Amino acid sequence: MPTPSARLLAVARGDAPADLVIRGARVFSAFTKEWLDADVTVADGRIAGLPARGAALPVGPDTVELDGTGRHLVPGFVDAHVHIESSKLLPAAFARTIVPRGTTTVVVDPHEIAGVLGAEGVRWMLDACDGVPLTVHAMLPSTVPASDLESPRGPLDAEALRELLEHPRVRGVGEMMNAPGVANGDPHALAVLALVADAARVDGHAPGVTGAALDAYLAAGPSTDHEATTLDEALEKRRKGAWVLLREATNARNLRDLLPLVRAHGPEHSAFCTDDREPGTLLHEGHIDGMCAVAVAEGVVPEDALLLATLHGARCHGLDRVGAIAPGWAADLLLLDDLVTFRPSTVVRGGRVVARDGAPVGDAWPAGPAAGSGAPTPSWVRDTVRLAPVDRGTFALPAPSGADLVRVIRAIPDQLLTGEEHVAPTVVDGLVVADPDRDLATIAVLERHHATGRVGLGLVTGFGLRSGAFAGTVSHDAHNVIAVGVDDGDLAACVARLRELGGGLVVCDEGAVVAEMPLPVAGLLSDLPATEVHAQQVRLDEALTARGVTLPSPFMALSFLGLSVIPALKITDRGLVDAAALRPVAFGVEAG
Amino acid sequence: MPTPSARLLAVARGDAPADLVIRGARVFSAFTKEWLDADVTVADGRIAGLPARGAALPVGPDTVELDGTGRHLVPGFVDAHVHIESSKLLPAAFARTIVPRGTTTVVVDPHEIAGVLGAEGVRWMLDACDGVPLTVHAMLPSTVPASDLESPRGPLDAEALRELLEHPRVRGVGEMMNAPGVANGDPHALAVLALVADAARVDGHAPGVTGAALDAYLAAGPSTDHEATTLDEALEKRRKGAWVLLREATNARNLRDLLPLVRAHGPEHSAFCTDDREPGTLLHEGHIDGMCAVAVAEGVVPEDALLLATLHGARCHGLDRVGAIAPGWAADLLLLDDLVTFRPSTVVRGGRVVARDGAPVGDAWPAGPAAGSGAPTPSWVRDTVRLAPVDRGTFALPAPSGADLVRVIRAIPDQLLTGEEHVAPTVVDGLVVADPDRDLATIAVLERHHATGRVGLGLVTGFGLRSGAFAGTVSHDAHNVIAVGVDDGDLAACVARLRELGGGLVVCDEGAVVAEMPLPVAGLLSDLPATEVHAQQVRLDEALTARGVTLPSPFMALSFLGLSVIPALKITDRGLVDAAALRPVAFGVEAG
Repeated sequence: MPTPSARLLAVARGDAPADLVIRGARVFSAFTKEWLDADVTVADGRIAGLPARGAALPVGPDTVELDGTGRHLVPGFVDAHVHIESSKLLPAAFARTIVPRGTTTVVVDPHEIAGVLGAEGVRWMLDACDGVPLTVHAMLPSTVPASDLESPRGPLDAEALRELLEHPRVRGVGEMMNAPGVANGDPHALAVLALVADAARVDGHAPGVTGAALDAYLAAGPSTDHEATTLDEALEKRRKGAWVLLREATNARNLRDLLPLVRAHGPEHSAFCTDDREPGTLLHEGHIDGMCAVAVAEGVVPEDALLLATLHGARCHGLDRVGAIAPGWAADLLLLDDLVTFRPSTVVRGGRVVARDGAPVGDAWPAGPAAGSGAPTPSWVRDTVRLAPVDRGTFALPAPSGADLVRVIRAIPDQLLTGEEHVAPTVVDGLVVADPDRDLATIAVLERHHATGRVGLGLVTGFGLRSGAFAGTVSHDAHNVIAVGVDDGDLAACVARLRELGGGLVVCDEGAVVAEMPLPVAGLLSDLPATEVHAQQVRLDEALTARGVTLPSPFMALSFLGLSVIPALKITDRGLVDAAALRPVAFGVEAG
Repeated sequence: MPTPSARLLAVARGDAPADLVIRGARVFSAFTKEWLDADVTVADGRIAGLPARGAALPVGPDTVELDGTGRHLVPGFVDAHVHIESSKLLPAAFARTIVPRGTTTVVVDPHEIAGVLGAEGVRWMLDACDGVPLTVHAMLPSTVPASDLESPRGPLDAEALRELLEHPRVRGVGEMMNAPGVANGDPHALAVLALVADAARVDGHAPGVTGAALDAYLAAGPSTDHEATTLDEALEKRRKGAWVLLREATNARNLRDLLPLVRAHGPEHSAFCTDDREPGTLLHEGHIDGMCAVAVAEGVVPEDALLLATLHGARCHGLDRVGAIAPGWAADLLLLDDLVTFRPSTVVRGGRVVARDGAPVGDAWPAGPAAGSGAPTPSWVRDTVRLAPVDRGTFALPAPSGADLVRVIRAIPDQLLTGEEHVAPTVVDGLVVADPDRDLATIAVLERHHATGRVGLGLVTGFGLRSGAFAGTVSHDAHNVIAVGVDDGDLAACVARLRELGGGLVVCDEGAVVAEMPLPVAGLLSDLPATEVHAQQVRLDEALTARGVTLPSPFMALSFLGLSVIPALKITDRGLVDAAALRPVAFGVEAG
């Protein structure tokens, strides 16, 4: 708990003027699910008291008064699990996007930056959150590399984690992604779990894991999971004690499928999270506000939606006095005009008004460039792409001998899961080649941290690409270069352009750059505001649509095709991976 | 979280034999309020898995198998706030009484022993819980003395608390009883609260505190309260974020009055506690099991009663993985034959069977005397009564000059609260005297830690005592000698006998001891088992009944008449106290 201040108590008693008084609103009690007719006073960033509606209160020259008449006062929203890096925004720009939508607390796992810059990258990311009017708690990247089949810049070992656990923003260890390793008592996994014994919490990450494997995984320590995609999976996880985080990410849209859990069993032991959202999703669908709106539209009562959006996200991480309107709790407050859109007309964070009508306001925001945290990003964070020379020959894929069929990754709309298909490849001069008429494209992952020249090659279907290529330095979790194309020259052009940019996303056709998004910060983040990043994204997507691509959010889908811990077939710089079994597999399929 | 063991995970996976398998029961899920058709495996004191009903499981020569067919398997009960000292039993004898009733975890506040023996007494008490098959967490006595108007052996200052916070059983700081001091930002209270900032939790204790005073009290830090006596009070506390602990103590029977809170608003943010229970209550009404039975009889659904009795008591103290049946959680389990009495037929604690059919079984219990913890109680814990000489003149109470009326404490059945009445006293030879016909008895508190001879005197009504006197060294929280009598010679005889016993409870009449209970351990605890202590209590109560006493549990009622922080009129060795205002008041009442 925070150290109580004498002034906070004096304001609570009504003996001193508050920093902020909100009068006339209907006040949500997260503890009884009632709407209280009360006023609310704030001092020193905390809620002081809930005096009776209209009570005479001392007011000083610096007291800010808000009229909540006819509106609902609710706690600031909590995102229980989010990767800021997926927004491609620096923390201040990310905050400028989500705080006006009502999110005042996020629990982040900076594991993308960890894949590129290790422990120092994590520290830089957390420092970059300083001075931003958004409360940022961190769960440490537990699984760098995500598996032995991925190649980030380097591993984040138990000793590095131990040191990072001392950081004041750090609450525990983030998603333990090597689910089979955890369940099987893998020594590295147990060493990480032992680190946090008695001291912290562990987030889980167990897509599709059920039955005895789930028992073993949860017995090892993780207390949350945000990877359930079906009601049955979510229900089993909740029955067995995992906090079920209902996720609605740009390309992992699980919310509607999981809401029956809340309708049948209530909002307990469940919370909202966004995990990975592109700027366009943030700008058009919002953040936790939009999840509340969907939940209510799907038949969840507003009070239950609010618990998922506020108290429960804080509680699942043991955050003290966050997520409810009560004396001594964080003065993160939203005035809502309705319980349909859940869009706040006023956002208070730490007792100060920080947004109105969807836009940042007030002097709690850092000065300087709109997208920056105030401090310039150091060069070691901006100069991270190390690639061996690449040409069209890099992408030549020999036909496997002794196999009539090859494994093809199937990209699935709006899912992190992929499929595995077995097809007869199109072969020219002994090489397997892309075949747009059959929706078969070449996919490549190129190691880019140490310029080793290691390249994994395969085929992918599901995008619909008919000409050119596209590529990016955003590719979970190792963030090597990942590229898909139907022309090897365009694949090489994409990679060359990414080297010039120091990271980004790019579409090339006929050897020229058609559209691009520079991501100079660790190859992951832009230094522009969300609207500009989104405009670049739209041009990228339009360029792909013009080339036949039908898969939604193709660059985000691309970025997960290298993640070796979410089934089924994936690819890394070390080749194709059976992600369910966590083992390499051959391109050619043995005759069955 | 506990460090995961590789063996626990192997048992969870079904790859190794469990220590314990429970088959066939209906298993309570605290997270969905369902009854699951599952078996349960246990290893290393933790629940390993919930395999499907009847699944083939490896069984070794040491695997214990329990058949739960037709029964309910629920988590062990949690008492969220209890003073072991109120049972007058040593910890092992206390455990032998409550564990067979299903309680496997208690959160204790050893503040009675702290009043007598300071920080060393607290350490001794926690050590005496070692080796007992009951999980004991402690909240430190925060308020010794309870107020400046009480005289324990010495204060427990912030420095002593800081050192005690390092003890592995300590979870935080216990009931902050000086509610006005906390709300007013009293420096000692703020110093104690600052001690636990970010590190621990604080229990509240705010009887009758509402409105702005409650806001200030809760803003200061306490996160629980177990003193609500009315639905309105409990509802306001819960709305404002306090965990409402529904109490059913021997002489503070609040459960039925507060259950409407649960019926109207559910079991969230609420839990059961017993606070103070005499052995007779424990033997006849049980413990948390009996509270479940009352709740269900009063219309609470069994699943909600179970949450109040298990998960919520653990959650309000942040106890990790206690209070539910889930992989990795503490293997504290009860087999219940019904959801009416809630009396367990089998109790498992830490994975071992420790009780059957209401009696302790198995080798998890310490060897040695039934009531002892195994280790002998050291002499410094047994020899604590230091009294100045006393005779009948000690109890002479001069009539106040200039006042026609005097203040009289009214003892109220089954309440810690007292009343204040103003009556014309019976005066003989300038002295106010007891008057049994008007139910006016002399009440005295005698300082007994340093033999100062300080005595507070007054009148009490409500007991109905017609002859003799009774007294004890149990008197919250300073545990000075407290005595009530209608004969000054018998008052003196009681005190003399208490000095001889080194503490206890006693009834004297016509100068002789009529009944007694020796409490040689700190003047608070017996070294006998619960049944024998209860038999002594029955004889004491019978002796008082024979002398006209009608108040239920008169010795427990007596023991709270010196507690200066629960309204209204109380008495300490420093005289009469207005407990609502926390200030001394005169015996005589000024003409109004």
